[in-house]
Amino acid sequence: MPGKSELDLAALDRIRKHELAELRARTPRSRNYFSRSRLAMPDGVPCSWMASFYPGMEIVADRGKGAYFTDIDGNRYLDMSQCDLSMSCGFGPDIIANAVSERFRNGSHFLLPTEDALAVCQLLTERFAMPAWRFTLSASSANLEAIRIARVFTGRDKVLSFGGKYHGHIDETLTVASPTGLVTDQKGLPRDIVNRTVEIPFNDIVAVKEALETRGIACVIAEPVMTNIGVIYPEDGYLNELRALTRITGTLLVIDETHTQVAHYGGFTRRWALEPDILTLGKSLGGGLPFGAYGMTEQIKDALERNAEPRVKYCQAIALGGTTYGNAINMAAARAALSEVLTEEAYRRVGKLGDALADGICSALRKFDLPWTTQRLGNRSGLFLSATQPRNAAEAQGALSKPFNLAQRAFMANRGIWEPIYIHGPSLSFAHEFKEVLTYLAAFDEWIALIVKNDTVRTS
Amino acid sequence: MPGKSELDLAALDRIRKHELAELRARTPRSRNYFSRSRLAMPDGVPCSWMASFYPGMEIVADRGKGAYFTDIDGNRYLDMSQCDLSMSCGFGPDIIANAVSERFRNGSHFLLPTEDALAVCQLLTERFAMPAWRFTLSASSANLEAIRIARVFTGRDKVLSFGGKYHGHIDETLTVASPTGLVTDQKGLPRDIVNRTVEIPFNDIVAVKEALETRGIACVIAEPVMTNIGVIYPEDGYLNELRALTRITGTLLVIDETHTQVAHYGGFTRRWALEPDILTLGKSLGGGLPFGAYGMTEQIKDALERNAEPRVKYCQAIALGGTTYGNAINMAAARAALSEVLTEEAYRRVGKLGDALADGICSALRKFDLPWTTQRLGNRSGLFLSATQPRNAAEAQGALSKPFNLAQRAFMANRGIWEPIYIHGPSLSFAHEFKEVLTYLAAFDEWIALIVKNDTVRTS
Repeated sequence: MPGKSELDLAALDRIRKHELAELRARTPRSRNYFSRSRLAMPDGVPCSWMASFYPGMEIVADRGKGAYFTDIDGNRYLDMSQCDLSMSCGFGPDIIANAVSERFRNGSHFLLPTEDALAVCQLLTERFAMPAWRFTLSASSANLEAIRIARVFTGRDKVLSFGGKYHGHIDETLTVASPTGLVTDQKGLPRDIVNRTVEIPFNDIVAVKEALETRGIACVIAEPVMTNIGVIYPEDGYLNELRALTRITGTLLVIDETHTQVAHYGGFTRRWALEPDILTLGKSLGGGLPFGAYGMTEQIKDALERNAEPRVKYCQAIALGGTTYGNAINMAAARAALSEVLTEEAYRRVGKLGDALADGICSALRKFDLPWTTQRLGNRSGLFLSATQPRNAAEAQGALSKPFNLAQRAFMANRGIWEPIYIHGPSLSFAHEFKEVLTYLAAFDEWIALIVKNDTVRTS
Repeated sequence: MPGKSELDLAALDRIRKHELAELRARTPRSRNYFSRSRLAMPDGVPCSWMASFYPGMEIVADRGKGAYFTDIDGNRYLDMSQCDLSMSCGFGPDIIANAVSERFRNGSHFLLPTEDALAVCQLLTERFAMPAWRFTLSASSANLEAIRIARVFTGRDKVLSFGGKYHGHIDETLTVASPTGLVTDQKGLPRDIVNRTVEIPFNDIVAVKEALETRGIACVIAEPVMTNIGVIYPEDGYLNELRALTRITGTLLVIDETHTQVAHYGGFTRRWALEPDILTLGKSLGGGLPFGAYGMTEQIKDALERNAEPRVKYCQAIALGGTTYGNAINMAAARAALSEVLTEEAYRRVGKLGDALADGICSALRKFDLPWTTQRLGNRSGLFLSATQPRNAAEAQGALSKPFNLAQRAFMANRGIWEPIYIHGPSLSFAHEFKEVLTYLAAFDEWIALIVKNDTVRTS
């Protein structure tokens, strides 16, 4: 049975280098931009992720519409990534553009509530069933506020998360298990955060039980389906047991649906009738502007109101908020996105396209006798280089190959397909149609044919 | 000499209650909104600050243009706060509205650099003289990234800040000195953060020296002029000595000009030729969309590039970035704001209006023989209930009266003037003209006359 270990890494590297050289030749204006931008920004980009996500594939964006965008050299790309699932409404949908334009002209921010804010709450409650909401500018900040609330609510400091997770660039979840114990995952974080973070493998209910029994955990933070290292589903009953154990031990359960909500209307919180204490959201729900939000139970809402008196002395209020959180233009964009683009019917349509995408990937693998596994998550697919679905981060890590994915990303870019983040498979926006699925699958077939022909993978 | 202790707090409270009752009577639609929104959001607002900033003065915004906005009851307000200095370009300036509208229609975000990003860097370098830039969505996040960079650069964990400061809702600076030592300033923060935060009074160079000599401080973070507890200027030579001491001890100096940059073109970094290692910015520079940025020296830029390789194992990269940081629409709005609204000439014009505002406040105080002190900071003014300018937070706290300010805010709201944040004096946007200064001053005169007539303050 072929797997990661049977990939010819040198051949993949040769393919990648060949494709990157071609991409660079097609992007002289982007090259020129970077020769100037490297003087003005580290690595020539305004946000570090724009460099680290696309090693060797740096291009400069010009304009986008729907499922496509062009770079400044005029190359056109089918977008199969949606800016890491933050642009699932597609580029510049007219109905949201009108709302944004109108709102900006009449004031984009007042540090006061607007009618749109209340409308967005009602739209979110309809789909996610949480009764009350607060807003931020990102899912990171929503998760950070959820953790702060959990501390106040429980009087405990520690956070439990799962290996392979990503909940934003916040101290508490930027940790990773290493041979010497839990360490900070990136540089610049205070060393002592490992003392208030606990990380265990996903799908291991015994580990959950042991961790929660200490009664030192303020909250468990989890995606209902893990999405940061491929797609990892919970086993039957796992999330129910997790909910039961958090209740028994007085621990809050924070469900992060930032990525998973794109897969289903109302996310898995609705689909599986999860009952989080706090539900965190972000990215695409903002319709193309930065967005973060969290839903909460009545109990949590009451706790926040008790603490909302203006600060007069020490420790009066919970450390929530920011000057531009819940601002007028964000609320206007989110309202248009939720009511006009991200409708229940549209989720059904895109979900079917996602099924077709996954089916097509599966067929291509079968055609070449590659006994790998297809990822399925609503609008999103991908593949694991293993015969079975991974159950946790360690298994997923063993079923992913960075050299394989990097070579594929470069190959796809030269075929007009932007699927750049090496750890994520392809995903569809709400502007995609069936013809875009076919376009992707044709290129994917070509890619699989190439690697099989080049003996990059041995299947016998 | 009259001071805070000679205020008649009961009389101020009576005035406030009277004004609030009148405001509530004029805002039935806002009252109706809150009766519904309290079911959907804690305290009925999308961001907690919208409740805690305006106790008793909760209104709902409808639309704004330039220096004015209306609430949903049709009441019109002259904006003397600019959403805590985040809307200094005024509401909906056409030139930025056009840029925002155009950019949204052609894609608001690509997770790729755009031409605007590079243009914004060049515009920022022109005014602030820092050679390289990174972007976030808020000054809070810019300060957080600056602190993380300082940790990597120095190998130290601790942050030094000054009593009375505000640098955003980040763990490291949400601390405050108390009778029992440093404590967390708000709830929900991990207890252990006080172990890596040091707070000293502003304008005390001996305290700086003692703290830095430990060589355990990664960075000092400071506003050049403190703005969170009234306006507190540094004494002559203080910032130069601070810079010298940070250099000698290998400590980074982070200057936060989020608020102060509105006062002068290029902020005090330009005016006083400060030489920060990292300069953090936010709020108004985004032109009405959420914005954060930090400038850095070449040395810091080099350090970031060395660490920018894609993460493959543990601790490869600095924990910087977020999915929507440096996005296309933010960069388009900032470019329009910097090049068309926040010009050097416009700063001069608004600075003169700010002088007129402060002069008018000063005259009103003299007219009624109130020996109080006027705050002056470019476009911004205010008053201290003391005969001399405070040198640090303790002195400023002694010269501010929350009951006095809350009563004034309510009084002003009923005269169509929105100056809501009780800790901040009035400020002018770039859409304000001389007639708006006169409107404010007429109401301020009326306010001072009222409190003197009511014996709220005794001047003999």
